[in-house]
Amino acid sequence: MNERIILGIDPGTTIMGFGLIKVVGKRMEFLQLNELKLIKYDDHYVKLRLIFERTIELIETHHPDEIAIEAPFFGKNVQSMLKLGRAQGVAMAAGLSRQVPITEYSPKKIKMAITGNGNASKEQVAKMLQQTLGLNELPKNLDSTDGLAAAVCHFYNSGKTEIGKSYSGWSAFVKQNEGRVK
Amino acid sequence: MNERIILGIDPGTTIMGFGLIKVVGKRMEFLQLNELKLIKYDDHYVKLRLIFERTIELIETHHPDEIAIEAPFFGKNVQSMLKLGRAQGVAMAAGLSRQVPITEYSPKKIKMAITGNGNASKEQVAKMLQQTLGLNELPKNLDSTDGLAAAVCHFYNSGKTEIGKSYSGWSAFVKQNEGRVK
Repeated sequence: MNERIILGIDPGTTIMGFGLIKVVGKRMEFLQLNELKLIKYDDHYVKLRLIFERTIELIETHHPDEIAIEAPFFGKNVQSMLKLGRAQGVAMAAGLSRQVPITEYSPKKIKMAITGNGNASKEQVAKMLQQTLGLNELPKNLDSTDGLAAAVCHFYNSGKTEIGKSYSGWSAFVKQNEGRVK
Repeated sequence: MNERIILGIDPGTTIMGFGLIKVVGKRMEFLQLNELKLIKYDDHYVKLRLIFERTIELIETHHPDEIAIEAPFFGKNVQSMLKLGRAQGVAMAAGLSRQVPITEYSPKKIKMAITGNGNASKEQVAKMLQQTLGLNELPKNLDSTDGLAAAVCHFYNSGKTEIGKSYSGWSAFVKQNEGRVK
């Protein structure tokens, strides 16, 4: 039966939550839910390096077929958005460098896909994930579930390419744009 | 004599300007000034991939000892800062993945270092670069000189680590923080 692995990431500057699910036919199986704590590092470059390296490690260990990223499009101020953009950028670079297609979803779309309510609380999303995936317990820090939530959202949206912003693969792009890519 | 290569990058979403200089003792030599046009690509991921790949290619071809990045800290709005942050993030990931130390400078600091005036125009910066490095001609699009300007700014600031935000190298960090890095 057709199987695929989805890696979900929520790259932030204080924590990177990530989760892995396996999709077998129309069913999903839970593989992993974890977090990379970044708040303890003061150096911004160390944080970026850790996000990049952990994402590369996850790709090389689990060989995901697709990556889903939680990507907020709004934030408090330009400074925090620049930092968030950098965190997203290094995670995306990891996916791009290993030829894994990336799809990004806004927090609202993820909440909507999982609970049916775009304004659901973190607790509601976590509870629904626990139920759907049969998790024994939830992590203390609910922020770390956002990566897994992105992966599950991507599973629900498979085939509906208009929902997320999808990158269909470099080789496909090159084929379609021969002569434009140097 | 002690030689080192500095790669300067200005990663944006419409153009990435980049330049290379060689520092021999206290003197600098011009090596390259070029640009990667990104405005023609609609897909944001394609732009990010091109920035990442070109930066990797520049590192592997020229083996820079240091990378200087022009990094504005302010912008029009949160959306543009998120995009800019992503562009910076992928360029930084390229440097981080190849163990090349990165230092970032604000546009104001770069203008100040090159012309003595933090509010200098692009034309003034370009003219001064042309004079200092003995360039025969300037590129049509002066935006592409910003990467080279970052490299030259880094040369002027060598030794003054308080000026830019410097990343002193991953291996140094790991040594200082054994047990903290997993």
